[in-house]
Amino acid sequence: MPLWGNSFPKNTRSDEGMWTFDSPPLKHLFEKYRFTPSKEWLDTLRLASVRFTTGGGSGAFVSPNGLVITNHHVVMEELQALSTLTRDIVKNGFTANERGQELKCPNIELHVLVGMENITARMLLVSKLGMSADALYKARAEQIRILENEAASRANTRAEVVSLYAGGEYWLYTYKRFTDVRLVVAPELQAANFGGDFDNFAYPRFGLDFALVRVYENGKPYHSTHFLKWNTQGALAKELLAVAGHPGATNRFHTLAQYHFNRDVLYPFSLRRLNAWLQASRRYAARGQNEQRRALDDILNYENAKKSLLGEYQGLQDKALEEKCRRTEQELREKVRSDAELQRLYGNSWDIVGRIMQKQTVVFKEHTATFSTPLADVAFALIRATLETERLAGEKSKNTSGKNSPNTSSNVSQNVSQNNEAAQSNLAELRAQALADAPLDLEYEEIKLAGELEFLLAELSAGDPLVKVMLGEGSILRTPAEIAKEAVRGTRLADVSFRKALMEGGRKAIDRSTDPMLAFLRKLVPLWLERDDYNRANIQAPLASALEQIALARFAVYGKSAYPDATFTLRLSFGEIAQYPMNGSIAQPRTTLYGLFDRAHSFSGDDPNKDFALPERINARRDKLTLSTPVNFITNCDIVGGNSGSPLVNTKLEFVGLVFDGNIESLAGRFTYNEAAGRSICVHPAYIIEALRTVYDAPRIADELELAGKTASPPAKDASRVPPVRNNR
Amino acid sequence: MPLWGNSFPKNTRSDEGMWTFDSPPLKHLFEKYRFTPSKEWLDTLRLASVRFTTGGGSGAFVSPNGLVITNHHVVMEELQALSTLTRDIVKNGFTANERGQELKCPNIELHVLVGMENITARMLLVSKLGMSADALYKARAEQIRILENEAASRANTRAEVVSLYAGGEYWLYTYKRFTDVRLVVAPELQAANFGGDFDNFAYPRFGLDFALVRVYENGKPYHSTHFLKWNTQGALAKELLAVAGHPGATNRFHTLAQYHFNRDVLYPFSLRRLNAWLQASRRYAARGQNEQRRALDDILNYENAKKSLLGEYQGLQDKALEEKCRRTEQELREKVRSDAELQRLYGNSWDIVGRIMQKQTVVFKEHTATFSTPLADVAFALIRATLETERLAGEKSKNTSGKNSPNTSSNVSQNVSQNNEAAQSNLAELRAQALADAPLDLEYEEIKLAGELEFLLAELSAGDPLVKVMLGEGSILRTPAEIAKEAVRGTRLADVSFRKALMEGGRKAIDRSTDPMLAFLRKLVPLWLERDDYNRANIQAPLASALEQIALARFAVYGKSAYPDATFTLRLSFGEIAQYPMNGSIAQPRTTLYGLFDRAHSFSGDDPNKDFALPERINARRDKLTLSTPVNFITNCDIVGGNSGSPLVNTKLEFVGLVFDGNIESLAGRFTYNEAAGRSICVHPAYIIEALRTVYDAPRIADELELAGKTASPPAKDASRVPPVRNNR
Repeated sequence: MPLWGNSFPKNTRSDEGMWTFDSPPLKHLFEKYRFTPSKEWLDTLRLASVRFTTGGGSGAFVSPNGLVITNHHVVMEELQALSTLTRDIVKNGFTANERGQELKCPNIELHVLVGMENITARMLLVSKLGMSADALYKARAEQIRILENEAASRANTRAEVVSLYAGGEYWLYTYKRFTDVRLVVAPELQAANFGGDFDNFAYPRFGLDFALVRVYENGKPYHSTHFLKWNTQGALAKELLAVAGHPGATNRFHTLAQYHFNRDVLYPFSLRRLNAWLQASRRYAARGQNEQRRALDDILNYENAKKSLLGEYQGLQDKALEEKCRRTEQELREKVRSDAELQRLYGNSWDIVGRIMQKQTVVFKEHTATFSTPLADVAFALIRATLETERLAGEKSKNTSGKNSPNTSSNVSQNVSQNNEAAQSNLAELRAQALADAPLDLEYEEIKLAGELEFLLAELSAGDPLVKVMLGEGSILRTPAEIAKEAVRGTRLADVSFRKALMEGGRKAIDRSTDPMLAFLRKLVPLWLERDDYNRANIQAPLASALEQIALARFAVYGKSAYPDATFTLRLSFGEIAQYPMNGSIAQPRTTLYGLFDRAHSFSGDDPNKDFALPERINARRDKLTLSTPVNFITNCDIVGGNSGSPLVNTKLEFVGLVFDGNIESLAGRFTYNEAAGRSICVHPAYIIEALRTVYDAPRIADELELAGKTASPPAKDASRVPPVRNNR
Repeated sequence: MPLWGNSFPKNTRSDEGMWTFDSPPLKHLFEKYRFTPSKEWLDTLRLASVRFTTGGGSGAFVSPNGLVITNHHVVMEELQALSTLTRDIVKNGFTANERGQELKCPNIELHVLVGMENITARMLLVSKLGMSADALYKARAEQIRILENEAASRANTRAEVVSLYAGGEYWLYTYKRFTDVRLVVAPELQAANFGGDFDNFAYPRFGLDFALVRVYENGKPYHSTHFLKWNTQGALAKELLAVAGHPGATNRFHTLAQYHFNRDVLYPFSLRRLNAWLQASRRYAARGQNEQRRALDDILNYENAKKSLLGEYQGLQDKALEEKCRRTEQELREKVRSDAELQRLYGNSWDIVGRIMQKQTVVFKEHTATFSTPLADVAFALIRATLETERLAGEKSKNTSGKNSPNTSSNVSQNVSQNNEAAQSNLAELRAQALADAPLDLEYEEIKLAGELEFLLAELSAGDPLVKVMLGEGSILRTPAEIAKEAVRGTRLADVSFRKALMEGGRKAIDRSTDPMLAFLRKLVPLWLERDDYNRANIQAPLASALEQIALARFAVYGKSAYPDATFTLRLSFGEIAQYPMNGSIAQPRTTLYGLFDRAHSFSGDDPNKDFALPERINARRDKLTLSTPVNFITNCDIVGGNSGSPLVNTKLEFVGLVFDGNIESLAGRFTYNEAAGRSICVHPAYIIEALRTVYDAPRIADELELAGKTASPPAKDASRVPPVRNNR
């Protein structure tokens, strides 16, 4: 008999799911919320939604004049880039008092999903009887490249072939690109990021994590036909809410073997990896004031990543998740087994995945162990750029002479051509990386490299080829510190003009260089490229193939009733404002400005890094602020990283919140949706308006938003003017 | 290798412990805090500390004029009793504007511990060679009664024999009694209990959970020589803090067998028991508005108890606790085994405890299953009072005739005399209980009784004598609902005059009564008294004896290095303000008035029971309040229930906080101290002053407190005037 009941009311139906716009959960929405989104509703929301390619986040049009809202942290890098000695946008925020002051953001590119075509049939045609998994994998990549280039030939268009349901479906997504984006308003960092790393992934929360940019076309504000109507009142209790955004990556449909690999191999390794970085940075920071300042950014980033990884890792420890994974797999396998034809087609796929995972468990470290430091990354890019240049030149001459080169795996430059599709089209990127003139701190570099080598030596066996090359086979054993010292102290690679000269000298110059860092890395590159090759042929390709079979089996048994794993493409999540158990009590559904002042004052004197210091500009206007203004609130909408900046809308397509984070309980969301306690955290529109009007002197923008909210409904019938969703499956 | 480090700083030495005043942890205090309390320090703190016998809490003198501070919830029952239709002290609070308005609290009695005498030797003398555990148990009880009566013969003195270290030590504690206690200030309930049951045991917290009473002697304010100096600034970060109070009960030194019994038998049973009560009350509440109102108090009490029990139960699930328990026991047993004399004396005690726990596991429900409803309790008291009256009359006549009656266990009234020492001296109490005129709600009663019977039938076997008697042996099987209906519907016991008549008629009147409730319960009483008897002889007495042996073994091996389990006697805990990990971030060390307004506004519209409604009187003065005033704060001092109202002091013996609760992580504190996250929650003195001055119009009292804080140090040398601690051991 149960010991006790559950005092917290439960939703009878779970709001789990990150749905594609072609396949929203109509049955669930009707049964739980009595709502059925129309085609116009879906089209308008899709066309008002925006993807930030830089910063990896989402956003939405919120006025007819191209105004786009997103998170402060999504555009943070650009704010840093736009800051100067006399204008610290990060620290002080930014307000364009008039349109002419809106500030060009050269690195921001926005995408709007204008076309969705199901091309599964065309992708399946690529497969030929008797083709190896590796060959199919490469053929698919080639087909994808052709389709994307074809579709992207239109101006301002980008096309992407999206593999959904682990390859069960392929779609061609076309995006309208916006490249003239200008900064309108950004709050001060301390307001956007109040609570710093402590409150990252935490709730209750008090973040003003928004920024406003404006999209321009032909030098004029873009006329955004599709936008969300601003609603300062925000989301109401119990109303249906939707999030439109770009969740980055999930693994909700892993097989049990993959689950165990993640839990027992990948995550422990990744956490040790992260810890090694953290240790190196801390070691450097311990040297003095200056070093501490220079390492701070790294340390904060690693701490943030650690918090996130640990949250996922703790999710993986949950026996209930393992059980769910086991049950789901068992059920599907039994249904496949009970049908002779399905069993013939898909029956052995799970065993194949199991064997690949076993293999990967054995060879994992050897395949994955690599290292990364700012200088090493630059040097790698330099070496690879020259190899790539040589290879392309070779291909060109072969093509003109009409000959095809044989595939000999001993030839490094050929290997690159076979193995790395990305490298083929990314020479320019490699070059830019190799010649980047970001300052390199060689003292820090030496500590970082020593840390990397130490980590690799600890993780890899003494007989590992990489270890042998690193230590210098046959020579006396050297310590990681000695190797790093030798490679870093004599190098001239910190000097861009030195790299430029090498680049111009081509592969020969690289091969002949006596630069110690180059000499060290040169030996490692072929090794790594070979490993990539092995990895693709023996792990990635057969795994992708087996998972595709499982996805097809799932379709065959259940139909298309589930949502696909997240792929940084546009998705819809549904839900409502939802409390959850917290600290023995319940979480408050929203926070207010009172709470911001509370948390700041509650730490005073006990907050060495000023994570909880009051944002200066907000504090200066304290007496003018309405302290009961809602600040942040929570919903149970299913989100993960990449959803940052996603608009939260109600059924009237009003903008009622801005997603900016998930709570700590939601971090396991990569693997499983936590209905009971996983929550998305949103900035309340009232806080944004209050900040614009009372703190950041931007009534012009507050007016634009609230006026846009009062205009007639977004012209939904216009949706027919955009390419319709075509489902050819 | 460890996956990651711990980002939270750790205290190197644990602040665990609830120490008696004769044996503070001097080594720990010196090593960690470089502080050694003097005798004067200890005496002053002890003599300024107060125990509330009603409400089961603690308090302290905070002015030389008898002013005592405690928690609002400690005196809540009295506030209810003092409220009238025109003066709702609970809802609106109370302020005595002048001394003459201070309100007599007839039910409040305060105790100050003035004498502590180690009487272990005298208690051990009771034991005679070859005495059975049961006989020893009874002889001890008799000896205790004699010692207590002897010591309490002085006016205004109460004496208690306190068994510490599971009988390893016995102390005679003498208390000065104060019975003229008057209410000075109490805040409105909504301020004291903000957040209601939700925020009970929760943090962050915003409770104004204090009340002030004044002790009078001979009609005048008591001149309290020993009091704590009020410090409005409160506790500082990193300073040593001490709590003096009366923790109720802990089981920190259980054997593994006891631990398993608790985890596997007692707690699951208690939680099912509680759930049965909760279900019955909810069933009644579901009938309508009125019923809901009448059941609300019960439901809240049960929910509160459930929260607390669940917290303890979850603590018991912790494998680390089990391991600690196992290790501690193993280590001690090995040390005992390695010494022949110790082994002879104590070696088999753990096995005895193990066997008793096994026995108890089997007979537990049969021994424990009973039921309690307001009407049944009254009826039981009535039956027992008449039995007791008869017995005492019999004894008196025997004594005058010089005869001793033989001990025949078949004689119910004799059984009572043997088995229940409490009953012997508590006839008056039984009578008062039997004739209490609290209104009885017979409809609710019927549902409660049916629920109780249903629970017992589900828990007990069909062959259980109790079940047979309840169902009426030999008759047709009846449902619990039918039995309850029959017993309740025809009863006249709700009528006090009916009960009075029965009482006057004595046992004969009870035996002859045809009242259905009385007829039903009459059959059960002998059964239960017999069970009590069995239970004492076979479980309690031998268990007490074996645990005493283990305690003596512990002394023999380790000396008196540990603290004894809590016994609702005066103890000292030490610690400091301490953050802890919370919600993926860290807990704020204190809260402020901003936070009170935040939490209230954050629930608005989503808080049907108004648990988070703003306290009206505080809200009315909002603009006059300093919102950054600290409200509550946390320390790692080791406390449990009974510590409510305990003063928190610094090393200068200044009053710097008022303990009123523990966080949810501290609930397992009955079994283990949770250094990492278990915290005591205190009201900040600045909030009390702010409330007195700005909200409750009590500047007279605020002045008295702050003035007392500025007077010369409490006259520590006066401590010599009180009986010194005598340790005769």
